[in-house]
Amino acid sequence: RGRAGLGLAAAAALSLTLAAWWRRRSRPLREVLFFPSPPSCTEALLAEAAGPGGASRPCSCPLPHGDCSLSRLLSLLLTARRSLEICLFAFSSPQLGSAVQLLHRRGVRVRVVTDAQYMGLQGSQIGLLRLAGIQVRHDQESGYMHHKFAIVDGRMVITGSLNWTTQAIQNNRENVLVMEDAEYVKPFLDEFERIWEEYNPINYRFF
Amino acid sequence: RGRAGLGLAAAAALSLTLAAWWRRRSRPLREVLFFPSPPSCTEALLAEAAGPGGASRPCSCPLPHGDCSLSRLLSLLLTARRSLEICLFAFSSPQLGSAVQLLHRRGVRVRVVTDAQYMGLQGSQIGLLRLAGIQVRHDQESGYMHHKFAIVDGRMVITGSLNWTTQAIQNNRENVLVMEDAEYVKPFLDEFERIWEEYNPINYRFF
Repeated sequence: RGRAGLGLAAAAALSLTLAAWWRRRSRPLREVLFFPSPPSCTEALLAEAAGPGGASRPCSCPLPHGDCSLSRLLSLLLTARRSLEICLFAFSSPQLGSAVQLLHRRGVRVRVVTDAQYMGLQGSQIGLLRLAGIQVRHDQESGYMHHKFAIVDGRMVITGSLNWTTQAIQNNRENVLVMEDAEYVKPFLDEFERIWEEYNPINYRFF
Repeated sequence: RGRAGLGLAAAAALSLTLAAWWRRRSRPLREVLFFPSPPSCTEALLAEAAGPGGASRPCSCPLPHGDCSLSRLLSLLLTARRSLEICLFAFSSPQLGSAVQLLHRRGVRVRVVTDAQYMGLQGSQIGLLRLAGIQVRHDQESGYMHHKFAIVDGRMVITGSLNWTTQAIQNNRENVLVMEDAEYVKPFLDEFERIWEEYNPINYRFF
């Protein structure tokens, strides 16, 4: 009878786990973040992501340390375990740059596509990412490479109006969508691979 | 017996209709459009939307007349029956401007929010929309009103990286998402109403 009870408990635990899995499977993340996001400290978030014990020292800087749209965006990016594709018109935010470098150091396969006109401007993170050994490709077209999206582990698309610049994060009205539905993720993955191939350096023209 | 057959047929028709309704209800539109979209003629689309018989004359201009990302975007906007909220950093596409004016004439309640810095530039559609009697409000902030979204009948959000300019449509790498999931529609509706109130002309400062 004790054994039957044990079996029953195990079955109950299994079905709870299955139910949770099913809920997760059947409820993909659907979220919208709005900006501007007030200036805030994200050191703890990055330190925690960098390794065990990293977040034990509380930061003493005068900025607020609570949740905001930027900290949410950082947290979602930092969930990457295998791959991160980034396709950005403008990338100059030091906080988002640190997050991307951290993922690269953690062994995540990071690939970046950007716009040639913007990447050379002062404050751009692109040079730092290249220095860190991250693969970056850029357009050579007359139009802009105006996308602003990232794909985490081939599972989640993060996209919207927001360029990854401190100006945009702190001052502009912007939106960022978080999407896990395959109807969105698949086309963005395809678009990234298409652009990645088109911007292959073997196609670059050097004037 | 004939009557019973009729009843059965009616019940079958009803259940088919209900099934179709349920399929529509349970499968919200989820779509991604990518740009650039090649130059194309959208006269037939606009003429058809303008009224019965409008599309009977085929257009003889030399541009291609097939489906493309721009024609799909126009078609989705033209499904509006009651309301259209638009929140755009830059709006200069004559084709999209015509569609918005057409909806306004058809009795759709159109409201437009835009960025003050851009709306005065040559080629902007904003002045034409105001002339046509459409309500427009703009920011008076130092940051940009950088959103690029529209909400159709409080049911569908259309948003992405694309400003509604011919330059962006024909030359840039851009994305536009079409979303009917409430998790996306509701926050964008709230954001629009928030901005609409904040940009109320009674708050404008005249220097």
